[in-house]
Amino acid sequence: MLLCDIGNTSYHFYDGRADYREPAETFEPESLKETVYYICVNPQVKARLDPLANWVDLAGYVDRGNYYDTMGIDRIMACEAVDEGVIVDAGSAITVDVVRGGRFEGGYIVPGLGALSEAYRRVSPRLDYSFDFELHLDKMPKNSRDAVTYGAVGLLARDVRSCGLPVCLTGGDAPKLLPLFPGARHDPLLLFAGMRKIIQKARPC
Amino acid sequence: MLLCDIGNTSYHFYDGRADYREPAETFEPESLKETVYYICVNPQVKARLDPLANWVDLAGYVDRGNYYDTMGIDRIMACEAVDEGVIVDAGSAITVDVVRGGRFEGGYIVPGLGALSEAYRRVSPRLDYSFDFELHLDKMPKNSRDAVTYGAVGLLARDVRSCGLPVCLTGGDAPKLLPLFPGARHDPLLLFAGMRKIIQKARPC
Repeated sequence: MLLCDIGNTSYHFYDGRADYREPAETFEPESLKETVYYICVNPQVKARLDPLANWVDLAGYVDRGNYYDTMGIDRIMACEAVDEGVIVDAGSAITVDVVRGGRFEGGYIVPGLGALSEAYRRVSPRLDYSFDFELHLDKMPKNSRDAVTYGAVGLLARDVRSCGLPVCLTGGDAPKLLPLFPGARHDPLLLFAGMRKIIQKARPC
Repeated sequence: MLLCDIGNTSYHFYDGRADYREPAETFEPESLKETVYYICVNPQVKARLDPLANWVDLAGYVDRGNYYDTMGIDRIMACEAVDEGVIVDAGSAITVDVVRGGRFEGGYIVPGLGALSEAYRRVSPRLDYSFDFELHLDKMPKNSRDAVTYGAVGLLARDVRSCGLPVCLTGGDAPKLLPLFPGARHDPLLLFAGMRKIIQKARPC
């Protein structure tokens, strides 16, 4: 079974053994003949997939009653994969979602690491620091790099930690963020676990 | 006595009775003949002011031992004005600084509201929401506008509130942020209060 999570920049495939990515701009979905179960937050790609009979959009098989209308299908799939925890999905945006007792409790969205770096750079070249993900969050920063890192990702990390729930990191930038979340689980394939649960529940074929 | 706080975009003057702004790009500092006590975080403007004898840079009169080397002089002046509290200075960047017992304890920097909006927009047009500053911070967001607002300014507001200190808001975007900080003081002239304290201590003339 081939699964695919399509974001703003890439197709992320998982064939049950290995995962790999193809760039959203150049990959040709018509080149695949087998059935692909997918989710997609990229409207251009979605329009291209709609006419292809072997690409099955899992968005239609989710019980949306647990979520809100405009919530991204990628966030929903991550929540479906977890019974209790905080999910931090660090891609072009960083989403933080809380699930308790199998129910979505709410979540929020921060620009991704690249967009945050760019935002500081645009405010002033004097704020153009690389983030220090080894930052200690228990004391207030007393140098510029720490001050920028704390504002960019420290606030988020402190907020996530304060939930007192297991933390699961996923998304392309998860490895960078890991040191800010001691004890967190890193699961690059989290969304695929949610997709498999949905397929098992719905048996869309 | 004429005071001036020069930022990335404007000269902010205060003559002891009223404050007014002039755009950094077009204002001609040579046009003023009286003594102007100033602070400046804009290197282009600083270079232009250096040869002008009637423009007195207050940066040289601050005891920097309480702060760190690369800390902006605007943040230092705000801290000088306060004995106990959290200062939120919302301009092209938002700086948050903590002062306890007259001592700077540390602080951090977040991109300003304009830069944050731009960052969300660049990540995806689907995240292009105006922030809702009436957001309730005691529950997790369950709609997209709240999810974006919480990520942009809610985390910061929750962190500031958790300090348990008086909160003082200043900077051009302070009026927008005020609803997120119940009980906070809004002082658009806070930096000038710090500048006056420095002048009184140092008597630079």
